[in-house]
Amino acid sequence: MQESTKADVVRRLRSVEGHVRGVAKMVEGGDVAYTDVVQQTNAIFAAIRRINTVLLKDFVEERAGDDGASDELVKDLIKAIDRVVK
Amino acid sequence: MQESTKADVVRRLRSVEGHVRGVAKMVEGGDVAYTDVVQQTNAIFAAIRRINTVLLKDFVEERAGDDGASDELVKDLIKAIDRVVK
Amino acid sequence: MQESTKADVVRRLRSVEGHVRGVAKMVEGGDVAYTDVVQQTNAIFAAIRRINTVLLKDFVEERAGDDGASDELVKDLIKAIDRVVK
Amino acid sequence: MQESTKADVVRRLRSVEGHVRGVAKMVEGGDVAYTDVVQQTNAIFAAIRRINTVLLKDFVEERAGDDGASDELVKDLIKAIDRVVK
Repeated sequence: MQESTKADVVRRLRSVEGHVRGVAKMVEGGDVAYTDVVQQTNAIFAAIRRINTVLLKDFVEERAGDDGASDELVKDLIKAIDRVVK
Repeated sequence: MQESTKADVVRRLRSVEGHVRGVAKMVEGGDVAYTDVVQQTNAIFAAIRRINTVLLKDFVEERAGDDGASDELVKDLIKAIDRVVK
Repeated sequence: MQESTKADVVRRLRSVEGHVRGVAKMVEGGDVAYTDVVQQTNAIFAAIRRINTVLLKDFVEERAGDDGASDELVKDLIKAIDRVVK
Repeated sequence: MQESTKADVVRRLRSVEGHVRGVAKMVEGGDVAYTDVVQQTNAIFAAIRRINTVLLKDFVEERAGDDGASDELVKDLIKAIDRVVK
């Protein structure tokens, strides 16, 4: 994993960790509405999804770079992935 | 939220929290393979999805119960939801 | 299935059918860009998802109605489902 | 799009088209159970998802091939995509 990606992924995971801990406290603490909890878990869901995309793009950049692929190729691959992975 | 669900959801969230912390340490700690990290984030993804389903089923049980709905109705609603929410 | 839903679902399915046929012709007919095809398949994907939601809501309305559930209950169940099924 | 992929994608789309038409007839024709319809729409859903993956892999193969990328690189990119796109 590229160093810059590593820092970004760790930062994102720490943020998810704090978010999950917050939701656990919220549920534990009292009478929470279904709506409020699901709003939080949906947000966590989306954050994990984004981490997966960051990881895949990093892999493509690093692996294609190791192979001496052109910047143009890497850019086009990343764009193609973005069309399908959401 | 029903008390038994609350305990279950908190337990699941604590487990996700530990899982996310573990992945952050793994990424921070050294040279991790893309494959290994994505395997973990996919597992976290699935765990969050299951929490959402638990929350929805609890809502249906509690809300329909408050309305005096039959057990039969609640059971059928839960089964119908399971067909679509995966 | 309620009669009004049946008509709606058939209309949606016919529309998807025409859409899929159009994409097949587009791919068959010439040199199509990846981007253009994926844009179409993503749209078809979303249309099928909406049909699933229509079906689930119809089931909830009909099944809860058969059970003599209040309109209020049905409305709350539908809203709860909308939070999770996207 | 590579010629072999084009034929594969058209074949898959024709199959989806027939499937959708069949479900429309089924819904139109009589008293269908929610469960049976959702089982069909879920299968159509999965089939479209597979078409998207076929398209993305074809794009990667063709685009990386145009760039003179090694077979090894293409293979690794395809495997990485398979980890995230499901």
